[in-house]
Amino acid sequence: MSATQPEHAEFLSQNAQYVASFGDKGALAMPPARKLAIVTCMDARLDPAAHLGLKEGEAHVIRNAGGVAKEALRSLILSQRLLGTREIAVFHHTDCGMLAFTTPYIQDVLKKDAPGDAAFAARVDAIEWMEFNDLEKAVKDDVAYLKSEPLILEETLVTGWVYDVKTGKVAQVA
Amino acid sequence: MSATQPEHAEFLSQNAQYVASFGDKGALAMPPARKLAIVTCMDARLDPAAHLGLKEGEAHVIRNAGGVAKEALRSLILSQRLLGTREIAVFHHTDCGMLAFTTPYIQDVLKKDAPGDAAFAARVDAIEWMEFNDLEKAVKDDVAYLKSEPLILEETLVTGWVYDVKTGKVAQVA
Repeated sequence: MSATQPEHAEFLSQNAQYVASFGDKGALAMPPARKLAIVTCMDARLDPAAHLGLKEGEAHVIRNAGGVAKEALRSLILSQRLLGTREIAVFHHTDCGMLAFTTPYIQDVLKKDAPGDAAFAARVDAIEWMEFNDLEKAVKDDVAYLKSEPLILEETLVTGWVYDVKTGKVAQVA
Repeated sequence: MSATQPEHAEFLSQNAQYVASFGDKGALAMPPARKLAIVTCMDARLDPAAHLGLKEGEAHVIRNAGGVAKEALRSLILSQRLLGTREIAVFHHTDCGMLAFTTPYIQDVLKKDAPGDAAFAARVDAIEWMEFNDLEKAVKDDVAYLKSEPLILEETLVTGWVYDVKTGKVAQVA
């Protein structure tokens, strides 16, 4: 593949290998077999299926910048009420961009691309960027939030974890 | 593992195997090497790293119920402006819950759990459930949305795909 080709040009050849070893996965049901939902970060270094040993069909995986539980609420409600999950595990990770970037910095980076454009600035200001400055506290806060959210089922088992990008290790913190 | 044990009880033993073969992945940089961001569904049957051949460090992966681009906007902006991605691939899939469930149905399921609770009902009604009724159209709509969103970089290459849960195959539709 040449350096100037778009990355999606590789999808079909890579996918052909997956399809060749697909086996009986076409018979999997929609509801997750382990009744488990994972919330984690979009970070490219994380492969939650690999580092938690999750197979296709076992768990919902919700990912966003930071692994922020609040932004995952719609998905988690659907996961529980319509697809039967009863356990949530929230994972944040070391060296997360949401630990490094602050709202003023993000707003500044964006607004420099459209100086004097008030409509653009208003769009930037309308977004809640959801950064955090203490990794373990952020995980504990997300677990506390889910435990107190009325739309999350009371009987849900919620745990909180940190993934270490330097070692691949997970550790439970809540 | 007994049937009554929580699912996260398996995380540490599964993770130990991953850590044992972690190799030099601890040296990976935060910005995705392929400058690529994937938006896809939380569905348990999907393992985007496996079915697209993505390795750790290569791409941001954003997942929510449906693989809805609008809910991924905050993450995509951070992916592009702070971590250098320039390509987005949106994946929806066959037999998606968001094709099966409608807003009135979801609201009804939830409200039946708290009859007469006006505060609970108001929380339910405040959520945009983001279902769709035409799979290919939903992918095309998400691609069009990202191409027209002022906070997404104009030079972004945006493509749209359908994943078939019966075969494991991906097909480009936009």
